[in-house]
Amino acid sequence: MSPPVGPRERLRELGLGLPPVPAPRGRYRPWRRAGSLVVTAGVIAADQAGVRTGRVGDDLDVEAAREAARVAALALLAILDEAAGGLDRIAQLLLLHGYVRSAPGFGEQPRVVDAASELLAAVLDEAGLHARVALGVSELPLGAAVELQAWAEVAGG
Amino acid sequence: MSPPVGPRERLRELGLGLPPVPAPRGRYRPWRRAGSLVVTAGVIAADQAGVRTGRVGDDLDVEAAREAARVAALALLAILDEAAGGLDRIAQLLLLHGYVRSAPGFGEQPRVVDAASELLAAVLDEAGLHARVALGVSELPLGAAVELQAWAEVAGG
Amino acid sequence: MSPPVGPRERLRELGLGLPPVPAPRGRYRPWRRAGSLVVTAGVIAADQAGVRTGRVGDDLDVEAAREAARVAALALLAILDEAAGGLDRIAQLLLLHGYVRSAPGFGEQPRVVDAASELLAAVLDEAGLHARVALGVSELPLGAAVELQAWAEVAGG
Repeated sequence: MSPPVGPRERLRELGLGLPPVPAPRGRYRPWRRAGSLVVTAGVIAADQAGVRTGRVGDDLDVEAAREAARVAALALLAILDEAAGGLDRIAQLLLLHGYVRSAPGFGEQPRVVDAASELLAAVLDEAGLHARVALGVSELPLGAAVELQAWAEVAGG
Repeated sequence: MSPPVGPRERLRELGLGLPPVPAPRGRYRPWRRAGSLVVTAGVIAADQAGVRTGRVGDDLDVEAAREAARVAALALLAILDEAAGGLDRIAQLLLLHGYVRSAPGFGEQPRVVDAASELLAAVLDEAGLHARVALGVSELPLGAAVELQAWAEVAGG
Repeated sequence: MSPPVGPRERLRELGLGLPPVPAPRGRYRPWRRAGSLVVTAGVIAADQAGVRTGRVGDDLDVEAAREAARVAALALLAILDEAAGGLDRIAQLLLLHGYVRSAPGFGEQPRVVDAASELLAAVLDEAGLHARVALGVSELPLGAAVELQAWAEVAGG
Protein backbone atom coordinates (compact mmCIF):
# COMPACT_ATOMS: atom_id res chain seq x y z
CA MET A 1 0.00 0.00 0.00
CA SER A 2 1.33 3.41 -0.89
CA PRO A 3 1.07 6.14 1.71
CA PRO A 4 -1.86 8.53 1.32
CA VAL A 5 -1.16 11.51 -0.87
CA GLY A 6 -1.63 14.83 0.90
CA PRO A 7 -1.56 18.52 0.05
CA ARG A 8 2.24 18.73 0.21
CA GLU A 9 2.64 15.85 -2.25
CA ARG A 10 0.05 17.37 -4.57
CA LEU A 11 1.87 20.70 -4.46
CA ARG A 12 5.12 18.94 -5.35
CA GLU A 13 3.48 17.10 -8.24
CA LEU A 14 2.33 20.47 -9.55
CA GLY A 15 5.93 21.67 -9.38
CA LEU A 16 5.01 24.16 -6.69
CA GLY A 17 6.17 24.92 -3.18
CA LEU A 18 4.76 27.11 -0.45
CA PRO A 19 6.20 30.62 -0.34
CA PRO A 20 6.84 32.31 3.01
CA VAL A 21 3.76 33.69 4.75
CA PRO A 22 3.40 37.23 3.37
CA ALA A 23 4.48 39.91 5.84
CA PRO A 24 1.48 42.04 6.86
CA ARG A 25 1.49 45.50 5.25
CA GLY A 26 0.41 47.22 8.44
CA ARG A 27 -0.74 46.61 11.99
CA TYR A 28 -2.54 43.33 11.50
CA ARG A 29 -1.88 39.59 11.45
CA PRO A 30 -1.90 37.12 8.54
CA TRP A 31 -4.58 34.99 10.21
CA ARG A 32 -6.71 34.53 13.30
CA ARG A 33 -8.33 31.40 14.65
CA ALA A 34 -11.49 30.98 16.73
CA GLY A 35 -12.33 27.41 17.66
CA SER A 36 -12.22 25.45 14.43
CA LEU A 37 -12.57 28.55 12.25
CA VAL A 38 -9.59 30.15 10.57
CA VAL A 39 -9.81 33.50 8.83
CA THR A 40 -7.00 34.89 6.71
CA ALA A 41 -6.02 38.43 5.93
CA GLY A 42 -6.31 39.61 2.37
CA VAL A 43 -3.32 38.58 0.26
CA ILE A 44 -2.41 40.40 -2.90
CA ALA A 45 -0.75 38.72 -5.85
CA ALA A 46 2.93 39.07 -4.96
CA ASP A 47 5.93 36.79 -4.85
CA GLN A 48 9.71 37.26 -4.81
CA ALA A 49 9.40 38.76 -8.31
CA GLY A 50 7.26 41.53 -6.82
CA VAL A 51 3.64 42.58 -6.91
CA ARG A 52 1.60 41.50 -9.93
CA THR A 53 0.12 44.87 -10.81
CA GLY A 54 -2.33 46.00 -13.44
CA ARG A 55 -5.96 46.39 -14.26
CA VAL A 56 -7.70 43.54 -16.05
CA GLY A 57 -9.33 44.63 -19.28
CA ASP A 58 -6.96 47.57 -19.48
CA ASP A 59 -3.20 46.88 -19.22
CA LEU A 60 -3.62 43.22 -18.23
CA ASP A 61 -5.31 40.37 -20.11
CA VAL A 62 -7.31 37.56 -18.55
CA GLU A 63 -4.44 35.05 -18.77
CA ALA A 64 -2.05 37.37 -16.93
CA ALA A 65 -4.73 38.05 -14.34
CA ARG A 66 -5.26 34.31 -13.89
CA GLU A 67 -1.53 33.91 -13.29
CA ALA A 68 -1.76 36.69 -10.68
CA ALA A 69 -4.65 34.81 -9.07
CA ARG A 70 -2.48 31.67 -8.87
CA VAL A 71 0.34 33.64 -7.24
CA ALA A 72 -2.09 34.99 -4.64
CA ALA A 73 -3.55 31.51 -4.08
CA LEU A 74 -0.11 30.10 -3.28
CA ALA A 75 0.40 32.85 -0.70
CA LEU A 76 -3.04 32.06 0.70
CA LEU A 77 -2.06 28.39 1.03
CA ALA A 78 1.06 29.43 2.96
CA ILE A 79 -1.13 31.32 5.42
CA LEU A 80 -3.59 28.44 5.75
CA ASP A 81 -0.70 26.02 6.33
CA GLU A 82 0.61 28.12 9.21
CA ALA A 83 -2.84 28.81 10.66
CA ALA A 84 -4.01 25.19 10.60
CA GLY A 85 -0.67 23.66 11.59
CA GLY A 86 -0.37 21.93 8.22
CA LEU A 87 -2.50 21.95 5.08
CA ASP A 88 -3.63 18.40 5.81
CA ARG A 89 -5.48 19.75 8.85
CA ILE A 90 -7.78 21.90 6.70
CA ALA A 91 -11.14 20.11 6.96
CA GLN A 92 -12.70 22.42 4.41
CA LEU A 93 -12.17 25.74 2.82
CA LEU A 94 -15.42 27.62 3.46
CA LEU A 95 -15.31 30.88 1.54
CA LEU A 96 -12.98 32.53 -0.92
CA HIS A 97 -13.27 36.23 -1.66
CA GLY A 98 -11.64 37.12 -4.96
CA TYR A 99 -11.17 40.81 -5.71
CA VAL A 100 -10.12 41.61 -9.26
CA ARG A 101 -8.90 45.09 -10.19
CA SER A 102 -11.08 45.69 -13.21
CA ALA A 103 -11.31 48.18 -16.03
CA PRO A 104 -14.75 49.67 -16.75
CA GLY A 105 -16.86 47.12 -18.59
CA PHE A 106 -14.78 44.07 -17.65
CA GLY A 107 -17.12 41.38 -16.29
CA GLU A 108 -15.12 38.16 -16.42
CA GLN A 109 -14.03 38.18 -12.79
CA PRO A 110 -15.19 34.54 -12.39
CA ARG A 111 -12.70 33.37 -15.03
CA VAL A 112 -9.90 35.17 -13.22
CA VAL A 113 -10.76 33.92 -9.72
CA ASP A 114 -11.28 30.43 -11.12
CA ALA A 115 -7.52 30.11 -11.53
CA ALA A 116 -7.24 30.44 -7.75
CA SER A 117 -10.16 28.10 -7.09
CA GLU A 118 -8.67 25.47 -9.40
CA LEU A 119 -5.29 25.61 -7.66
CA LEU A 120 -6.86 25.41 -4.20
CA ALA A 121 -8.93 22.39 -5.25
CA ALA A 122 -5.92 20.75 -6.91
CA VAL A 123 -3.87 21.07 -3.72
CA LEU A 124 -6.52 20.49 -1.05
CA ASP A 125 -8.67 18.01 -3.01
CA GLU A 126 -12.22 17.66 -1.62
CA ALA A 127 -11.32 19.91 1.32
CA GLY A 128 -10.52 22.66 -1.16
CA LEU A 129 -14.06 23.09 -2.45
CA HIS A 130 -15.47 26.41 -1.34
CA ALA A 131 -18.18 29.00 -1.71
CA ARG A 132 -16.91 32.06 -3.51
CA VAL A 133 -17.47 35.74 -4.13
CA ALA A 134 -15.88 37.29 -7.22
CA LEU A 135 -15.88 41.07 -7.39
CA GLY A 136 -14.49 43.79 -9.58
CA VAL A 137 -12.90 46.59 -7.58
CA SER A 138 -11.41 49.82 -8.79
CA GLU A 139 -8.19 49.75 -6.77
CA LEU A 140 -6.18 47.29 -4.70
CA PRO A 141 -3.19 47.84 -2.40
CA LEU A 142 0.04 48.62 -4.30
CA GLY A 143 -1.82 48.43 -7.59
CA ALA A 144 -2.13 44.64 -7.35
CA ALA A 145 -4.30 42.94 -9.97
CA VAL A 146 -5.84 40.39 -7.59
CA GLU A 147 -6.46 40.06 -3.85
CA LEU A 148 -7.78 36.93 -2.13
CA GLN A 149 -9.13 36.25 1.35
CA ALA A 150 -10.48 33.02 2.86
CA TRP A 151 -12.30 31.32 5.71
CA ALA A 152 -11.55 27.69 6.51
CA GLU A 153 -12.53 25.01 8.99
CA VAL A 154 -9.75 23.15 10.74
CA ALA A 155 -10.07 19.46 11.66
CA GLY A 156 -10.23 18.55 15.32
CA GLY A 157 -10.44 22.25 16.16
CA MET B 1 -55.60 26.40 15.90
CA SER B 2 -54.12 27.24 12.54
CA PRO B 3 -50.73 25.76 11.74
CA PRO B 4 -47.74 28.06 12.20
CA VAL B 5 -46.89 30.15 9.17
CA GLY B 6 -43.38 29.52 7.90
CA PRO B 7 -41.05 30.92 5.25
CA ARG B 8 -42.65 28.88 2.47
CA GLU B 9 -46.12 30.20 3.30
CA ARG B 10 -44.83 33.76 3.49
CA LEU B 11 -43.15 33.35 0.12
CA ARG B 12 -46.41 32.11 -1.35
CA GLU B 13 -48.34 35.02 0.16
CA LEU B 14 -45.88 37.35 -1.55
CA GLY B 15 -46.62 35.60 -4.81
CA LEU B 16 -43.09 34.28 -4.97
CA GLY B 17 -41.45 30.88 -5.27
CA LEU B 18 -37.91 29.72 -4.86
CA PRO B 19 -35.93 29.59 -8.10
CA PRO B 20 -33.44 26.75 -8.66
CA VAL B 21 -30.12 27.13 -6.85
CA PRO B 22 -27.95 29.13 -9.25
CA ALA B 23 -25.32 27.04 -11.00
CA PRO B 24 -21.82 28.11 -9.92
CA ARG B 25 -19.99 30.11 -12.59
CA GLY B 26 -16.70 28.32 -12.00
CA ARG B 27 -14.98 25.82 -9.77
CA TYR B 28 -16.80 26.51 -6.53
CA ARG B 29 -19.94 25.50 -4.62
CA PRO B 30 -23.11 27.49 -3.88
CA TRP B 31 -22.64 27.06 -0.14
CA ARG B 32 -20.54 25.45 2.58
CA ARG B 33 -21.49 24.55 6.12
CA ALA B 34 -19.32 24.32 9.25
CA GLY B 35 -21.18 23.29 12.39
CA SER B 36 -24.17 25.59 12.62
CA LEU B 37 -22.68 28.18 10.26
CA VAL B 38 -23.69 28.38 6.63
CA VAL B 39 -21.87 30.57 4.16
CA THR B 40 -23.16 31.20 0.66
CA ALA B 41 -21.34 32.03 -2.53
CA GLY B 42 -21.96 35.39 -4.12
CA VAL B 43 -25.14 35.43 -6.21
CA ILE B 44 -25.68 37.96 -8.92
CA ALA B 45 -29.10 39.28 -9.91
CA ALA B 46 -30.17 36.73 -12.50
CA ASP B 47 -33.27 34.65 -13.16
CA GLN B 48 -34.72 32.80 -16.12
CA ALA B 49 -35.05 36.17 -17.87
CA GLY B 50 -31.28 36.55 -17.69
CA VAL B 51 -28.78 38.67 -15.80
CA ARG B 52 -30.02 42.04 -14.53
CA THR B 53 -27.18 44.15 -15.86
CA GLY B 54 -26.39 47.82 -15.59
CA ARG B 55 -24.73 50.45 -13.48
CA VAL B 56 -26.85 52.30 -10.95
CA GLY B 57 -26.76 56.03 -11.41
CA ASP B 58 -25.78 55.57 -15.02
CA ASP B 59 -27.96 53.30 -17.22
CA LEU B 60 -30.04 51.99 -14.29
CA ASP B 61 -32.21 53.89 -11.82
CA VAL B 62 -32.66 53.08 -8.15
CA GLU B 63 -36.00 51.32 -8.66
CA ALA B 64 -34.58 48.99 -11.32
CA ALA B 65 -31.59 48.32 -9.08
CA ARG B 66 -33.93 47.50 -6.18
CA GLU B 67 -35.73 45.03 -8.42
CA ALA B 68 -32.35 43.47 -9.28
CA ALA B 69 -31.63 43.22 -5.55
CA ARG B 70 -34.92 41.36 -5.04
CA VAL B 71 -34.04 38.94 -7.84
CA ALA B 72 -30.67 38.25 -6.22
CA ALA B 73 -32.31 37.86 -2.79
CA LEU B 74 -34.64 35.16 -4.13
CA ALA B 75 -31.64 33.26 -5.49
CA LEU B 76 -29.95 33.69 -2.12
CA LEU B 77 -33.00 32.22 -0.39
CA ALA B 78 -32.83 29.21 -2.72
CA ILE B 79 -29.23 28.61 -1.65
CA LEU B 80 -30.05 29.04 2.03
CA ASP B 81 -32.97 26.63 1.68
CA GLU B 82 -30.73 23.94 0.25
CA ALA B 83 -27.89 24.60 2.69
CA ALA B 84 -30.05 24.57 5.81
CA GLY B 85 -32.34 21.77 4.69
CA GLY B 86 -35.33 24.09 4.59
CA LEU B 87 -35.75 27.81 5.20
CA ASP B 88 -37.51 27.10 8.48
CA ARG B 89 -34.22 25.76 9.81
CA ILE B 90 -32.50 29.15 9.47
CA ALA B 91 -32.11 30.28 13.08
CA GLN B 92 -30.82 33.66 11.99
CA LEU B 93 -29.32 35.37 9.03
CA LEU B 94 -26.06 36.83 10.34
CA LEU B 95 -24.57 39.00 7.65
CA LEU B 96 -25.59 40.20 4.21
CA HIS B 97 -23.03 41.66 1.84
CA GLY B 98 -24.66 43.79 -0.84
CA TYR B 99 -22.47 44.85 -3.73
CA VAL B 100 -24.00 47.46 -6.02
CA ARG B 101 -22.42 48.27 -9.38
CA SER B 102 -22.32 52.03 -9.08
CA ALA B 103 -21.64 55.01 -11.32
CA PRO B 104 -19.21 57.63 -10.00
CA GLY B 105 -20.95 59.77 -7.42
CA PHE B 106 -23.79 57.35 -6.68
CA GLY B 107 -24.05 56.90 -2.92
CA GLU B 108 -27.47 55.36 -2.33
CA GLN B 109 -26.32 51.76 -2.07
CA PRO B 110 -28.29 51.33 1.20
CA ARG B 111 -31.59 52.06 -0.60
CA VAL B 112 -30.75 49.46 -3.23
CA VAL B 113 -29.65 46.75 -0.81
CA ASP B 114 -32.65 47.51 1.39
CA ALA B 115 -34.89 45.87 -1.21
CA ALA B 116 -33.03 42.62 -0.54
CA SER B 117 -33.08 43.11 3.23
CA GLU B 118 -36.82 43.78 3.17
CA LEU B 119 -37.53 40.64 1.18
CA LEU B 120 -35.34 38.49 3.43
CA ALA B 121 -37.08 39.85 6.53
CA ALA B 122 -40.52 39.39 4.94
CA VAL B 123 -39.79 35.73 4.21
CA LEU B 124 -37.72 34.74 7.24
CA ASP B 125 -39.45 37.01 9.76
CA GLU B 126 -37.37 37.59 12.93
CA ALA B 127 -34.77 35.09 11.72
CA GLY B 128 -34.23 37.28 8.67
CA LEU B 129 -32.82 40.24 10.56
CA HIS B 130 -29.13 40.65 9.75
CA ALA B 131 -26.08 42.84 9.95
CA ARG B 132 -25.24 44.27 6.56
CA VAL B 133 -22.50 45.78 4.45
CA ALA B 134 -23.53 47.86 1.42
CA LEU B 135 -20.78 48.71 -1.02
CA GLY B 136 -20.42 50.37 -4.38
CA VAL B 137 -18.19 48.41 -6.73
CA SER B 138 -17.05 49.27 -10.20
CA GLU B 139 -17.72 45.93 -11.86
CA LEU B 140 -19.55 42.69 -11.14
CA PRO B 141 -19.51 39.34 -12.96
CA LEU B 142 -21.34 39.45 -16.31
CA GLY B 143 -22.11 43.12 -15.80
CA ALA B 144 -24.69 42.36 -13.10
CA ALA B 145 -26.14 45.33 -11.23
CA VAL B 146 -26.20 43.65 -7.81
CA GLU B 147 -24.42 40.77 -6.08
CA LEU B 148 -25.34 39.40 -2.64
CA GLN B 149 -23.61 37.03 -0.24
CA ALA B 150 -24.66 35.86 3.21
CA TRP B 151 -23.76 34.06 6.41
CA ALA B 152 -26.46 32.33 8.43
CA GLU B 153 -26.85 30.24 11.55
CA VAL B 154 -28.77 26.99 11.27
CA ALA B 155 -30.95 25.70 14.09
CA GLY B 156 -29.86 22.51 15.84
CA GLY B 157 -26.59 22.60 13.93
CA MET C 1 -1.79 46.61 43.46
CA SER C 2 -3.49 48.81 40.88
CA PRO C 3 -6.61 47.48 39.19
CA PRO C 4 -6.12 46.04 35.70
CA VAL C 5 -6.42 48.54 32.89
CA GLY C 6 -9.17 47.70 30.42
CA PRO C 7 -10.47 49.00 27.11
CA ARG C 8 -12.52 51.77 28.74
CA GLU C 9 -9.47 53.09 30.61
CA ARG C 10 -7.36 52.94 27.48
CA LEU C 11 -10.02 54.85 25.55
CA ARG C 12 -10.03 57.50 28.25
CA GLU C 13 -6.24 57.77 28.21
CA LEU C 14 -6.47 58.39 24.47
CA GLY C 15 -8.93 61.19 25.18
CA LEU C 16 -11.69 59.26 23.45
CA GLY C 17 -15.14 58.05 24.36
CA LEU C 18 -17.52 55.68 22.67
CA PRO C 19 -20.08 57.34 20.40
CA PRO C 20 -23.65 56.01 20.26
CA VAL C 21 -24.13 52.87 18.18
CA PRO C 22 -24.76 54.17 14.65
CA ALA C 23 -28.39 53.90 13.60
CA PRO C 24 -28.78 51.42 10.73
CA ARG C 25 -29.38 53.12 7.38
CA GLY C 26 -32.03 50.61 6.35
CA ARG C 27 -33.69 47.37 7.36
CA TYR C 28 -30.82 45.71 9.16
CA ARG C 29 -29.21 45.52 12.58
CA PRO C 30 -25.86 46.88 13.80
CA TRP C 31 -24.67 43.40 14.83
CA ARG C 32 -25.64 39.76 15.14
CA ARG C 33 -24.23 37.09 17.41
CA ALA C 34 -23.99 33.34 16.92
CA GLY C 35 -22.43 31.44 19.80
CA SER C 36 -19.18 33.20 20.55
CA LEU C 37 -19.03 34.91 17.16
CA VAL C 38 -20.08 38.52 16.69
CA VAL C 39 -20.44 40.09 13.29
CA THR C 40 -20.97 43.80 12.79
CA ALA C 41 -22.69 45.71 10.04
CA GLY C 42 -20.59 47.99 7.90
CA VAL C 43 -20.01 51.37 9.53
CA ILE C 44 -19.11 54.42 7.52
CA ALA C 45 -16.95 57.22 8.82
CA ALA C 46 -19.52 59.47 10.48
CA ASP C 47 -19.89 61.20 13.81
CA GLN C 48 -21.95 64.10 15.18
CA ALA C 49 -20.08 66.37 12.75
CA GLY C 50 -21.52 64.35 9.87
CA VAL C 51 -20.27 61.90 7.30
CA ARG C 52 -16.57 62.10 6.39
CA THR C 53 -16.95 62.18 2.63
CA GLY C 54 -14.48 62.24 -0.20
CA ARG C 55 -12.34 60.12 -2.44
CA VAL C 56 -8.78 59.42 -1.37
CA GLY C 57 -6.24 60.47 -3.94
CA ASP C 58 -8.72 62.92 -5.39
CA ASP C 59 -10.37 65.45 -3.02
CA LEU C 60 -9.02 63.82 0.16
CA ASP C 61 -5.42 63.19 1.20
CA VAL C 62 -4.13 60.18 3.11
CA GLU C 63 -4.07 61.98 6.46
CA ALA C 64 -7.71 63.04 6.16
CA ALA C 65 -8.63 59.51 5.10
CA ARG C 66 -6.79 58.11 8.13
CA GLU C 67 -8.79 60.44 10.35
CA ALA C 68 -11.97 59.15 8.67
CA ALA C 69 -10.79 55.60 9.39
CA ARG C 70 -10.37 56.51 13.08
CA VAL C 71 -13.89 57.94 13.19
CA ALA C 72 -15.26 54.73 11.69
CA ALA C 73 -13.18 52.62 14.10
CA LEU C 74 -14.71 54.41 17.08
CA ALA C 75 -18.19 53.67 15.76
CA LEU C 76 -17.14 50.05 15.25
CA LEU C 77 -15.98 49.89 18.88
CA ALA C 78 -19.38 51.18 19.99
CA ILE C 79 -21.05 48.33 18.11
CA LEU C 80 -18.63 45.73 19.50
CA ASP C 81 -19.20 47.07 23.02
CA GLU C 82 -22.96 46.62 22.71
CA ALA C 83 -22.70 43.24 20.96
CA ALA C 84 -20.25 41.73 23.43
CA GLY C 85 -21.77 43.28 26.54
CA GLY C 86 -18.63 45.34 27.16
CA LEU C 87 -15.39 45.75 25.25
CA ASP C 88 -13.54 43.76 27.91
CA ARG C 89 -15.54 40.71 26.81
CA ILE C 90 -13.98 40.77 23.32
CA ALA C 91 -11.66 37.76 23.35
CA GLN C 92 -10.25 38.65 19.97
CA LEU C 93 -11.05 40.69 16.97
CA LEU C 94 -10.92 38.22 14.09
CA LEU C 95 -11.25 40.12 10.85
CA LEU C 96 -11.45 43.75 9.82
CA HIS C 97 -12.66 44.72 6.36
CA GLY C 98 -11.52 48.20 5.40
CA TYR C 99 -13.12 49.73 2.32
CA VAL C 100 -11.49 52.93 1.10
CA ARG C 101 -13.20 55.09 -1.52
CA SER C 102 -10.28 55.51 -3.90
CA ALA C 103 -9.43 57.61 -6.92
CA PRO C 104 -8.03 55.78 -9.94
CA GLY C 105 -4.40 54.89 -9.32
CA PHE C 106 -4.53 55.25 -5.53
CA GLY C 107 -2.98 52.13 -3.97
CA GLU C 108 -2.21 53.10 -0.37
CA GLN C 109 -5.35 51.60 1.17
CA PRO C 110 -3.22 49.78 3.80
CA ARG C 111 -1.93 53.11 5.17
CA VAL C 112 -5.48 54.39 5.48
CA VAL C 113 -6.93 51.28 7.12
CA ASP C 114 -3.90 51.12 9.41
CA ALA C 115 -5.26 54.13 11.29
CA ALA C 116 -8.26 51.99 12.23
CA SER C 117 -6.13 48.94 13.05
CA GLU C 118 -3.86 51.03 15.27
CA LEU C 119 -6.79 52.47 17.21
CA LEU C 120 -8.41 49.04 17.66
CA ALA C 121 -5.14 47.60 18.94
CA ALA C 122 -4.57 50.60 21.22
CA VAL C 123 -7.98 50.15 22.82
CA LEU C 124 -8.33 46.35 22.85
CA ASP C 125 -4.63 45.54 23.38
CA GLU C 126 -3.75 41.95 22.43
CA ALA C 127 -7.41 41.16 21.81
CA GLY C 128 -7.44 43.86 19.16
CA LEU C 129 -5.02 42.12 16.81
CA HIS C 130 -6.84 40.99 13.69
CA ALA C 131 -6.58 39.70 10.16
CA ARG C 132 -7.47 42.37 7.65
CA VAL C 133 -8.63 43.06 4.13
CA ALA C 134 -7.98 46.51 2.66
CA LEU C 135 -9.79 47.33 -0.56
CA GLY C 136 -10.28 50.28 -2.83
CA VAL C 137 -13.89 50.72 -3.86
CA SER C 138 -15.39 53.23 -6.24
CA GLU C 139 -18.34 54.34 -4.11
CA LEU C 140 -19.55 54.06 -0.52
CA PRO C 141 -22.90 54.93 1.05
CA LEU C 142 -23.48 58.69 1.33
CA GLY C 143 -20.14 59.35 -0.31
CA ALA C 144 -18.23 58.27 2.80
CA ALA C 145 -14.45 57.99 2.48
CA VAL C 146 -14.11 54.83 4.58
CA GLU C 147 -16.32 51.92 5.65
CA LEU C 148 -15.31 49.25 8.17
CA GLN C 149 -16.81 45.88 9.13
CA ALA C 150 -15.59 43.31 11.64
CA TRP C 151 -15.90 39.82 13.06
CA ALA C 152 -14.97 39.17 16.69
CA GLU C 153 -14.91 36.35 19.20
CA VAL C 154 -16.55 36.97 22.55
CA ALA C 155 -15.17 35.47 25.75
CA GLY C 156 -17.25 32.84 27.51
CA GLY C 157 -19.63 32.87 24.56
